[in-house]
Amino acid sequence: MRRTQCIGHYIRTIATFSVHPSIKRKMALLHDKCSKAESSVFTPGNLKVRTIKVKKSDDSLPPAELFIMAPESKGVYPVILFCHGYCTANTWYSHLLQHISSHGYIIVAPQFYQCLIMSMKDEIKTATKVTNWLSTGLKIILPENLKPDLSRLALLGHSRGGKTAFSLALSQDLTSLKFKALLGMDPVAGPSPPGRVEPDVLTYIPHSFNLSMPVGIIGTGLSNKSKGFIPSFAPNGINHAEFFNESKPPACYFLAKDYGHCDILDDSKVALASLVCKSGKGSKELMRNGVGGIIVAFLKAYLVGESEDLQSIVDAPSVAPITLGPVIYVK
Amino acid sequence: MRRTQCIGHYIRTIATFSVHPSIKRKMALLHDKCSKAESSVFTPGNLKVRTIKVKKSDDSLPPAELFIMAPESKGVYPVILFCHGYCTANTWYSHLLQHISSHGYIIVAPQFYQCLIMSMKDEIKTATKVTNWLSTGLKIILPENLKPDLSRLALLGHSRGGKTAFSLALSQDLTSLKFKALLGMDPVAGPSPPGRVEPDVLTYIPHSFNLSMPVGIIGTGLSNKSKGFIPSFAPNGINHAEFFNESKPPACYFLAKDYGHCDILDDSKVALASLVCKSGKGSKELMRNGVGGIIVAFLKAYLVGESEDLQSIVDAPSVAPITLGPVIYVK
Repeated sequence: MRRTQCIGHYIRTIATFSVHPSIKRKMALLHDKCSKAESSVFTPGNLKVRTIKVKKSDDSLPPAELFIMAPESKGVYPVILFCHGYCTANTWYSHLLQHISSHGYIIVAPQFYQCLIMSMKDEIKTATKVTNWLSTGLKIILPENLKPDLSRLALLGHSRGGKTAFSLALSQDLTSLKFKALLGMDPVAGPSPPGRVEPDVLTYIPHSFNLSMPVGIIGTGLSNKSKGFIPSFAPNGINHAEFFNESKPPACYFLAKDYGHCDILDDSKVALASLVCKSGKGSKELMRNGVGGIIVAFLKAYLVGESEDLQSIVDAPSVAPITLGPVIYVK
Repeated sequence: MRRTQCIGHYIRTIATFSVHPSIKRKMALLHDKCSKAESSVFTPGNLKVRTIKVKKSDDSLPPAELFIMAPESKGVYPVILFCHGYCTANTWYSHLLQHISSHGYIIVAPQFYQCLIMSMKDEIKTATKVTNWLSTGLKIILPENLKPDLSRLALLGHSRGGKTAFSLALSQDLTSLKFKALLGMDPVAGPSPPGRVEPDVLTYIPHSFNLSMPVGIIGTGLSNKSKGFIPSFAPNGINHAEFFNESKPPACYFLAKDYGHCDILDDSKVALASLVCKSGKGSKELMRNGVGGIIVAFLKAYLVGESEDLQSIVDAPSVAPITLGPVIYVK
């Protein structure tokens, strides 16, 4: 990406000089190609996306209500199981998930609870059941022209949903399907509420997660800040940094320096979350494009086998539409 | 080391069969060589060590009382500045420091305070002054046959002294000499006592330490455990794991799984510390040999340019006399 950026810049510069029309045409074509390559993962993909809402009463017998996003075009697509965050709804992430899906992914997002929050243990149980349901139920839900490729299954979670995702990945003996990649957006391992026994995910030993899949962590620079008198939702010691520390290579880390814990939600929901959670000043659309782009690049590398975009972000984080720093890739 | 161990084992095995005496002699020689190579960094070195105690009233005008360990044999040796831990004395580490020094290092250990503990800020100031004193004062203190090579200067700290060492390394503009390697033994960034403003070392951002030197971290598996009603001296989130997480490559991490925070002290002092600090059940001599060996291997790699021993420990942690796990080397 860095290389194409340089070529693009070079072409834009020399295009002002007088050159033969045929060379100009070739230059213009190359310029378009370069611009596309520069921005591809950070802009919506070429595929139109459809939304499917599935109730628990559906014939496919889903273990939870589901929010599914999938490309409209006929094809075979990798699948992502998405775990929402603390007291949020799966639909609050629709713009971010649409960005990812438009690059060729079927996303299945269960709603873990409606009003009363459930224990982590129950949340992980539900996530396990949804994973096991995928191989029988998903094809019933999806239009015939869409084939989920469950051999390329990824796991993505936000905030407390990040802990759920890591917990699920760490107990793969409970799921019939195996995850091939794991991504945490500002994952948080909050302390257990009094009287509840919840699984400890963090061990405070580097590289201790017993996982045999690549891990990507996206943190936010403001996630450890309090909002007035309301303490941080993702304090130091139990947030993104420690999740990365405990991930074995290959592991990637990206810090969206100027954004907050809930800034990946849809705009109207960010406004709501901002009442209790420190938010960044920058455009939330750019944040979603940035985070969506990282996720697409990571999954392209590990589910599709095309690592160029991921490597480009690592080599030159400034290709992203948001400020990233640090960006770390431990292979 | 792993390779030589295999050869050594092979020789010991086949030596029981009948072979020609000349071959047996060659085998015996090779066996000795192998045994030596297997255990070298984990056993005391070949050099006899002298101890020098320097008072503040000394002609060399040291900024603090110093405990110095240096080889007796004529030579030019790299130098280590050692920062002791919370409420301990520099002399409490004499066996460990002797192990390191016997491999060819001059160790300078200031005593930061006598009875009343000083603030971290003052401790770092004193450590800075001692560093700046080295280039003028050390040669006055040392016997004429010893030459300190201050172009090969390392920094080592234990517990709170680990934080002091990292703080000093992070403010290298204050010292006239530049450190070439940094080692923390169970470093702890304790919270500031009320009413005191102390430097924050940890940022909770991976690889954020602005250091241009290799970092080695040795943690202990019991350091985050409480001792009865006395809370841990090195709780999760502010201990060895986070120091490693914030270190840029090249960085090494070694966890002495079965030992406690104070188990590197001299035996009589471990007994004292064990009253307030969880201690391992294993031999403390083996612990000191294990930790001493790791330090010698790390310094050989980064001050002497011989990385074989360090790589051997990383490749096969079982060469150490204590159980290490995990061992991580991010290059």
